[in-house]
Amino acid sequence: MDQRPIGVFDSGLGGLTALRELRKLLPGEDLIYFGDTGRVPYGGRSRETILRYARQDVAFLRSFDLKAIVVACGTVSANALQELKGENDLPIFGVVGPAAAAAVKATRNKKVGLIGTAASIRSGAYEEEMGRIDPTVRVTALACPLFVPLVENGRFRPGDRVVELVVEEYLAPMKESGVDTLVLGCTHYPLLSQVIGNFMGPGVRLIDSGASCADRAGEWLGERGMLAERAAGACRYFVSDSTQDFARLASIFLGETVTGTVERVEIEKY
Amino acid sequence: MDQRPIGVFDSGLGGLTALRELRKLLPGEDLIYFGDTGRVPYGGRSRETILRYARQDVAFLRSFDLKAIVVACGTVSANALQELKGENDLPIFGVVGPAAAAAVKATRNKKVGLIGTAASIRSGAYEEEMGRIDPTVRVTALACPLFVPLVENGRFRPGDRVVELVVEEYLAPMKESGVDTLVLGCTHYPLLSQVIGNFMGPGVRLIDSGASCADRAGEWLGERGMLAERAAGACRYFVSDSTQDFARLASIFLGETVTGTVERVEIEKY
Repeated sequence: MDQRPIGVFDSGLGGLTALRELRKLLPGEDLIYFGDTGRVPYGGRSRETILRYARQDVAFLRSFDLKAIVVACGTVSANALQELKGENDLPIFGVVGPAAAAAVKATRNKKVGLIGTAASIRSGAYEEEMGRIDPTVRVTALACPLFVPLVENGRFRPGDRVVELVVEEYLAPMKESGVDTLVLGCTHYPLLSQVIGNFMGPGVRLIDSGASCADRAGEWLGERGMLAERAAGACRYFVSDSTQDFARLASIFLGETVTGTVERVEIEKY
Repeated sequence: MDQRPIGVFDSGLGGLTALRELRKLLPGEDLIYFGDTGRVPYGGRSRETILRYARQDVAFLRSFDLKAIVVACGTVSANALQELKGENDLPIFGVVGPAAAAAVKATRNKKVGLIGTAASIRSGAYEEEMGRIDPTVRVTALACPLFVPLVENGRFRPGDRVVELVVEEYLAPMKESGVDTLVLGCTHYPLLSQVIGNFMGPGVRLIDSGASCADRAGEWLGERGMLAERAAGACRYFVSDSTQDFARLASIFLGETVTGTVERVEIEKY
């Protein structure tokens, strides 16, 4: 038993989709969430900048006594996970490995699609991980740089013509390629899963990278007897921009009303 | 005569559209451009964060001996110009005042439209300025939060269905309102002027806020005998994210090949 909280971070609010899965799976855990809303999005930035920001995000979370950190951001997981693991003496879980494993397990025709930010796709991390597990899997990877701005602006619902057009434009070659499994390699994308699912059709299985990561973290902590023992854990939220409007926006990503406190952090100081 | 350079800054690369106008108008001036590409976009952030970032941008530019600063960013001009002017003992030019004056001068039916980022529209700065010059002008203001992500992703050309759909969606009520003048209140928007112009029709005059600001700065410096005297000024570029790819992206905004040097700045240190 380990009653210490789990830290979770993302470039912005997308990681709340992973937090939601953690809460469902491990309701007894205390969670500390940091969203770098003052510097979101990360997905169009260089690897050096992503690494610098990620180090500050981890340094802030480590101002608490944590038992583990979940990197609920596809861009950071794909570009900086090895460095973060090497520099920190606590378990750090990214979304790439768990999502890659889930995709390889799910595919029947060995054709897997992958969508993510420009920086995630450029890194090649998901393909590398899938290739390691099963070298016969063929991966079609596509950067979808407009998805995060759309979602951050609350644009993800079926019937939204702009969203449907962008999904159609990006995913037409993906559909053409005949994948039976599609990795949503960014924690913002689960909000688009209905529009993406409608376009790709019922034969394509969508892999939620944040949910896969939550599963992996829960399993790992459980195997080591490190889960908390309490009826209901609490959530604390931290952001790097104003806390105003956080509750309203966050509830969209969480799919429920935000109950924990929210505070602002000067992330540049970490 | 004042041979010192003029500093110019923006949240990202949008301000290069204003730099282009400055170069056309004042080819003899040395220019130092800073683009905060590591933290772009500003337009969805809180006023406190915009002010904090703008202060750092100015502090960096002031590490050079400048004769003036041009705030080539609608969001900063609308949210932080008074503070920046109050805190600095050199002339600082924003885009709001010049664009407001140009719009009031251009309109015949006294109906002016204004588009900008969420933070610019929320500030009310453009309306206030137009109201001060001519209280009978009626302003229709609209935030267009997807325009900056589209432009930053190279999506602004006529024939781009996504761009045309977003322009149509945002500007339909603007067209309906019968404005004869439309202020492009963000330095990214001149790249969209062809698509916007096609939608609004030939009866609507578009006001480029960056160009208006360049005019004002040139006039002000000229009146005081502060213009440089040399055949051709040089440009130096600074960005807060990687310099890789800068030349390619910047040439889109500048409408010409980038010739000056480009260096990276750790903007958080200012």
